[in-house]
Amino acid sequence: MEISKKPSFKPEMTLNRIQALTDGIFAIAMTLLVLSIDLPDKDLSLSGAPLHKYLLNQLDQFYIYAMSFFIMAVFWIIGHKQSRYFKRTDYRHLWLNILILMFVCLVPYSSSLVSDFGDDWMANLFFNSNVFIIALLYWINWIYGTKHKRLVYKNFDDSIFKTGNIGSKIFLMVSALAIILSLIVPSYAGYSYLLLIIFYNQKRIL
Amino acid sequence: MEISKKPSFKPEMTLNRIQALTDGIFAIAMTLLVLSIDLPDKDLSLSGAPLHKYLLNQLDQFYIYAMSFFIMAVFWIIGHKQSRYFKRTDYRHLWLNILILMFVCLVPYSSSLVSDFGDDWMANLFFNSNVFIIALLYWINWIYGTKHKRLVYKNFDDSIFKTGNIGSKIFLMVSALAIILSLIVPSYAGYSYLLLIIFYNQKRIL
Amino acid sequence: MEISKKPSFKPEMTLNRIQALTDGIFAIAMTLLVLSIDLPDKDLSLSGAPLHKYLLNQLDQFYIYAMSFFIMAVFWIIGHKQSRYFKRTDYRHLWLNILILMFVCLVPYSSSLVSDFGDDWMANLFFNSNVFIIALLYWINWIYGTKHKRLVYKNFDDSIFKTGNIGSKIFLMVSALAIILSLIVPSYAGYSYLLLIIFYNQKRIL
Amino acid sequence: MEISKKPSFKPEMTLNRIQALTDGIFAIAMTLLVLSIDLPDKDLSLSGAPLHKYLLNQLDQFYIYAMSFFIMAVFWIIGHKQSRYFKRTDYRHLWLNILILMFVCLVPYSSSLVSDFGDDWMANLFFNSNVFIIALLYWINWIYGTKHKRLVYKNFDDSIFKTGNIGSKIFLMVSALAIILSLIVPSYAGYSYLLLIIFYNQKRIL
Repeated sequence: MEISKKPSFKPEMTLNRIQALTDGIFAIAMTLLVLSIDLPDKDLSLSGAPLHKYLLNQLDQFYIYAMSFFIMAVFWIIGHKQSRYFKRTDYRHLWLNILILMFVCLVPYSSSLVSDFGDDWMANLFFNSNVFIIALLYWINWIYGTKHKRLVYKNFDDSIFKTGNIGSKIFLMVSALAIILSLIVPSYAGYSYLLLIIFYNQKRIL
Repeated sequence: MEISKKPSFKPEMTLNRIQALTDGIFAIAMTLLVLSIDLPDKDLSLSGAPLHKYLLNQLDQFYIYAMSFFIMAVFWIIGHKQSRYFKRTDYRHLWLNILILMFVCLVPYSSSLVSDFGDDWMANLFFNSNVFIIALLYWINWIYGTKHKRLVYKNFDDSIFKTGNIGSKIFLMVSALAIILSLIVPSYAGYSYLLLIIFYNQKRIL
Repeated sequence: MEISKKPSFKPEMTLNRIQALTDGIFAIAMTLLVLSIDLPDKDLSLSGAPLHKYLLNQLDQFYIYAMSFFIMAVFWIIGHKQSRYFKRTDYRHLWLNILILMFVCLVPYSSSLVSDFGDDWMANLFFNSNVFIIALLYWINWIYGTKHKRLVYKNFDDSIFKTGNIGSKIFLMVSALAIILSLIVPSYAGYSYLLLIIFYNQKRIL
Repeated sequence: MEISKKPSFKPEMTLNRIQALTDGIFAIAMTLLVLSIDLPDKDLSLSGAPLHKYLLNQLDQFYIYAMSFFIMAVFWIIGHKQSRYFKRTDYRHLWLNILILMFVCLVPYSSSLVSDFGDDWMANLFFNSNVFIIALLYWINWIYGTKHKRLVYKNFDDSIFKTGNIGSKIFLMVSALAIILSLIVPSYAGYSYLLLIIFYNQKRIL
């Protein structure tokens, strides 16, 4: 019966294996974010400095962890929301998604960079550009897949096109703001993403 | 036939992708726990100190590894048990689960902290608070999802509400005890979780 | 239609989520094994020692990586073979599997230990005991699940019980041999597992 | 109803669990590639050297990250394309796939090696040989599975055999070229893989 259902091979790449890879990579990249929080040296106890002071000084790093995790979750939801309208994949769509994953896997590095050099404009520029590029690629993914109903279901219409992409658009603007702030007030650039919570929560976009 | 089954997109976020992310993150976070056990320096053999003495001194770290792994497994089971009654998800439920995962991914860090500074009250407080917060969030998840049968199946009733949550309640109390012990006798706080085995085993709650 | 299929919640823990966790943990633990191979210091090139000599000296570590990967693959197959006969799970079976995973996640640590201290009896004893315990637990898992057809399909019979467990039995004996060799000739203990290839290949047990 | 569908156990190993392990291992190995990019020391800021100069000097490492990620993605697609024609698995096919995964998990190590010792012939030889072996094993996997229609669907024919394997063949040649270049001009060997983009893109092979 199992065999009768699949009498022949499927000629096309299927969406669900791309999604399995995507889910796996997101799960790992999100879990690796924690490695960007420094662990105190074991010699700390010998030097007499109390641990709670050390951890208090690390509040920035905990914020960056939470922020990066939140950003990754938003991307995961954006990707998932888009994929619900997609019926099939093609050559360009496949590689576009691999490109997205390449930048997603870079986030733990960017996050470590900004966690160690929070006051440096370059570290902030690097992190926020990484985030901006992912947001941009998801936006391109949406445009590409929905144009002429290329990869989407038949009942896809213009209103879905507009509303379905608001999450990406807001993200693009917020991360562009974060890039600009990186060059002016690097230490505060990361707080831009708090705007996401306000925007998304208001209309329950995600 | 594949296509005829899915003539159109699904308008709502589905539970099973959240569960795929959850399973992935739990699997990784549980595997990363092992990194909190220190590896002896390769120079150890030169210094003449035998390896078996080194490992014997690390018994605490092995206990913390086993305990953290056990705690994570309990959370995974609690989450899984809850999800069996859930029919659908919504905006708040989704974000609540992402918040849970954010604290789950922090456990390898907390575990390393308590593994390196087992006698320190702050390290123990940090670890046990992390655990307490996850237990609390799972408890909120249960209340939120079952209230007015918001996200659960129709045949869900009050008796399930009461019995289905005992696992979380016990966990909340035990981790609250562990927090208090962290402030009084930090080195022994971690042993509170042995109570879980007794409670859970007695009535086969999990 | 999706909903009509699931009119109510499933009262019991299902096997496939345990398997999802198992597959995830095996995939990660197997991938982490590579971390036990030392990377040469970047200063190596400055010191004039050529890289190919360094890598040649590491042949042992590459063998241990390949051996550990092979052992993990064998366990994954044993677990998978057992699960094909299982229809359901219960309280004890669930926790037995979590215990198995706890020792599976310890393998990257044990592997690093034996990779760094290959000549030490303790490192070899640790690694081989870790392997032995997993083999033993899988053996117990088989006995427990099949006794009185507790968790297996109705058409399960005695001949399957005998043949289905040969893989575990051979593994138990080979890892017991490796433990003994760890105490006598530690450097050679790891080669015991080459016997597995001979035994398994002969009758295509796995 | 769930039970009536599966009245008895499946006597054979199923393809989809091998694929689940494969997807998991690829996802993790691809995410771990990022660890081969060096993080600047936190003392960098004290030494006065600006971060942007440090990152600029690391351009090579970013290229190697992107290249390795791309290579892994190509392998993942090759493996996936092959598996679409496969109906079942057998003893040899299973172990061949585990051997493939063993070399896939080695890529983060090879990638770190070439990332740290980009000018060294040995580091490049190691990385490119690793890649070549995976390409070769996928090629063997294809020959083995399709010969006498051993593991494939009935409607598999000679034209699929030829076209379905072009991706592997091109990869084999390109990585062989990279091996030769490793011995002559090690620093440039990695650029061979840019040829893949040209070849694959032209006929949309992957």
